[in-house]
Amino acid sequence: MDVWGDSYTIGKWQDLIVETLESGDSTPIFNINPKDTREFDAIFLGGGAAGRFGAAYLRALGGRVLIIDRWPFLGGSCPHQACVPHHLFSDCAAQLMLERTFSSKLWFQNLEDKIVSIKNIVDLFRNGRTGPHAVMNYQSKEQLGLEFVLNAESEIIDANTVKIGKRKYQAKNLVLALGAKPLVADIPGASLKGVFNSLTLVEKLDYEPGNTIVVIGGGKSAIEYGCFFNATGRRTLVIARHQLMPMLKDAESRSYAILMMEEQGMEFLEYAEISNIQGDLQGKVKSVSIRTADGTINVDTDFVFMGLGEQANSEMIAQKLALETGEKGFIKINRHMQTSVHNVYAVGDVTGSPMEMFKARKEGVCAAKNIMGQTSEYKAADYPDFMHTHYEVCWLGLSEEEARQRHANVKVMKLPPDNPNGLDVGLPAGDRMMLYLMAKPRMSGFQKLIIDGDTRKILGAFHIGYGAKDGFQYLNFLVKKGLTIDDLADMDELFISPSYFIQLCRLRAGDPHFNNM
Amino acid sequence: MDVWGDSYTIGKWQDLIVETLESGDSTPIFNINPKDTREFDAIFLGGGAAGRFGAAYLRALGGRVLIIDRWPFLGGSCPHQACVPHHLFSDCAAQLMLERTFSSKLWFQNLEDKIVSIKNIVDLFRNGRTGPHAVMNYQSKEQLGLEFVLNAESEIIDANTVKIGKRKYQAKNLVLALGAKPLVADIPGASLKGVFNSLTLVEKLDYEPGNTIVVIGGGKSAIEYGCFFNATGRRTLVIARHQLMPMLKDAESRSYAILMMEEQGMEFLEYAEISNIQGDLQGKVKSVSIRTADGTINVDTDFVFMGLGEQANSEMIAQKLALETGEKGFIKINRHMQTSVHNVYAVGDVTGSPMEMFKARKEGVCAAKNIMGQTSEYKAADYPDFMHTHYEVCWLGLSEEEARQRHANVKVMKLPPDNPNGLDVGLPAGDRMMLYLMAKPRMSGFQKLIIDGDTRKILGAFHIGYGAKDGFQYLNFLVKKGLTIDDLADMDELFISPSYFIQLCRLRAGDPHFNNM
Repeated sequence: MDVWGDSYTIGKWQDLIVETLESGDSTPIFNINPKDTREFDAIFLGGGAAGRFGAAYLRALGGRVLIIDRWPFLGGSCPHQACVPHHLFSDCAAQLMLERTFSSKLWFQNLEDKIVSIKNIVDLFRNGRTGPHAVMNYQSKEQLGLEFVLNAESEIIDANTVKIGKRKYQAKNLVLALGAKPLVADIPGASLKGVFNSLTLVEKLDYEPGNTIVVIGGGKSAIEYGCFFNATGRRTLVIARHQLMPMLKDAESRSYAILMMEEQGMEFLEYAEISNIQGDLQGKVKSVSIRTADGTINVDTDFVFMGLGEQANSEMIAQKLALETGEKGFIKINRHMQTSVHNVYAVGDVTGSPMEMFKARKEGVCAAKNIMGQTSEYKAADYPDFMHTHYEVCWLGLSEEEARQRHANVKVMKLPPDNPNGLDVGLPAGDRMMLYLMAKPRMSGFQKLIIDGDTRKILGAFHIGYGAKDGFQYLNFLVKKGLTIDDLADMDELFISPSYFIQLCRLRAGDPHFNNM
Repeated sequence: MDVWGDSYTIGKWQDLIVETLESGDSTPIFNINPKDTREFDAIFLGGGAAGRFGAAYLRALGGRVLIIDRWPFLGGSCPHQACVPHHLFSDCAAQLMLERTFSSKLWFQNLEDKIVSIKNIVDLFRNGRTGPHAVMNYQSKEQLGLEFVLNAESEIIDANTVKIGKRKYQAKNLVLALGAKPLVADIPGASLKGVFNSLTLVEKLDYEPGNTIVVIGGGKSAIEYGCFFNATGRRTLVIARHQLMPMLKDAESRSYAILMMEEQGMEFLEYAEISNIQGDLQGKVKSVSIRTADGTINVDTDFVFMGLGEQANSEMIAQKLALETGEKGFIKINRHMQTSVHNVYAVGDVTGSPMEMFKARKEGVCAAKNIMGQTSEYKAADYPDFMHTHYEVCWLGLSEEEARQRHANVKVMKLPPDNPNGLDVGLPAGDRMMLYLMAKPRMSGFQKLIIDGDTRKILGAFHIGYGAKDGFQYLNFLVKKGLTIDDLADMDELFISPSYFIQLCRLRAGDPHFNNM
């Protein structure tokens, strides 16, 4: 079908997307301007974070661009299978932790020992996910004026030519924005029914998991989904080959995050690995064997979750175009986003870590600039980061340990302060933290600012709580520009601010030789 | 009692504060260094936001300072009667709106038509509020090395001399940081039992309010407490003399905020006023008479809340020292925080609006600098701002209307976009918004960025949702320094970010003549 001439509201897009997904109709949706006779400067294969942003930028620079995507919507896996369900599940974890903490108190229901349906939450997501898809189609077509073909199986002819059915499209450049998918571990039993990853959980879950869940991995995905499973009331065992949450480098912040998970009943086995997943006669998981330093243990479960990172969606295309790839199929690129093949670029998750939205989008923009004749380089570095436990955990810059290795005079400001009472004190407080503050203050968060006492520059920041994630975006930009304790002390805080960095700095800033706090 | 020589943990402070408050013991708590023979550079009367931060800064600059406060804790009214209970109540409003929206769905209990106890929440606060007090005493004594006298009735002898019991203290300067208290409207019946303001609500509520609550006022306090009362399940009628929420100047943002409150069942009477509050034979409120453009109406209620702004705690001191004061008793100061009397400064809420933490604290710091011989000026301007409805509402800079008056080429980027579907679309999304996004997208927030299309500078930002408040602190600092759409487009977003400003700018930034979005 051709939609170029018609104005599509968000509602009309939503109807079309739902209908196409439900029916499995394979008719492509063409949105191409028949009156534009220019050759395409680029075809973007994949309209997710990297492809859509790259294409929008290329068009903003005055070029002509075509996006081709296999789904009937732009936006890619994020709203369909990745970031959006993850955030929904993490919101549920936060909400359930609160309800369990206040079980039978105030107006709260009794949730003690009650198990909450995972399948109902997954179904809620499946039924609700097309809304953001529709907004992105609307925004791309009506607001950004992009040309695209959706719901399309495309065939790569060569580095300048793509076919969709009988229609052939040519472009000066090809940009591969094909994304990634969860890694499947090479463990006996990994393909049994009941073994899920973040993608298959939302696409294939068709039963209610039992009371024990085994999570494989110790990184972001394993912890985020593990906390959700735990919050639903199930025994949740996390099996990590290495240290938990190695990306959170500040030891004190990591300890707080892990302590709070343990207090919610999460069980961790570090430096352990799954040796085997056993199935029943119907081919469904019934137990796992876990190899630990103390020998092998067996755990009965009907639900195993693999949170092991990602591999590139590059097999076919890499072969077809003879592209150089590395580990896990990630396509090799230089700082201009150029692959080993002339006029072929690659952007986003298909080029490897960090598997984050800003990196995908900025790689897309970088490719667009180079294609349009601007010389542009990009390499993700010095970026802020976050993950969810039952909390939001945000960080930027150096950990206290890293800072002390590099600087002679490191100062720390944190809440709660070091004290014989440990965490059982009434600060920090912030939005969505107030009920904890009043009844169980140790749960009200942890935050820490690392400062170079000589230059007075901020070196790092850490926050476990709620409501600081948006701010870490702006704070990171400032820190990279040399933000000092004196700059922070002069800002206007919105009290009660989830992060206390401004006010803590103000209490100290008058002193040229300030102490920790 | 003298505590200088002893090390007080947070726990020990908490015990002392609770005991003192409960017993009504009027013994002052002296924390004065007997070995320091220097004269005090300043005595701060009041150890709240303005006094404690001013004193800490003065000491950081090398001076000697004494804080005197009538309460057995530092930190002032904020954690005891003002910001902290307000945030607790607003958290409850957010939580209850979510639970009501999802009533009987997923794991949520049935809250339909159920009324939640206000008194239990007030009691929770009363029992929990001493935690932050204890942290501030600990921080002030052990970390900041401040000298203070708490739980003290002080007598002002002259501009340099204060007496506490038989002890007399002299200082080169006196800094008045005495705060403010809620205004009481001059309405017949305003002193009946059952008429509350933010202070008396937490100090005096001793019954469970009935099913109808009348709120007087249309500003921050009235709306914030009104939303809380509404969320508990009660009919809540807000009576405003003027337009609701006049401080939120962007008309579209204000409309969204008001629409969401109306959908929760809030009732508003604008351009109306209470003419009379009627009591029963026991002296308790039984109804109110409201004068509107269409005549007078009567509403039965046993609970009236006055959210009318503040007046200064200045009566006695202004008279004693013959200080110039203005409307509502606010002490007149110049940009150096000097009052009309030599060597007497005034800082914080006692000097008038904005009644915000950053302003109080920065006035305290400004006074400290001037006292210590640095010439410092301060006048609160161009600050970010926020309030709570059931949501967090944040803003900074110019509204769209203000921007169009001052600039020829104003661009707007917002979510959700203008569309025939209005608000019923699936974006924005962000932390704590995901359940709404999936089931009732119109409730998932509104956000707007105002840009000068010529200079590409950000002029204003508005956000209704959760999780952007902390970021507005840093964003405001950047906007004042000339932040552009191109700067934003180059930042690293933490996706899903509650505010979409970075990504929206990136989609447009390639175009020298970008359009609205």
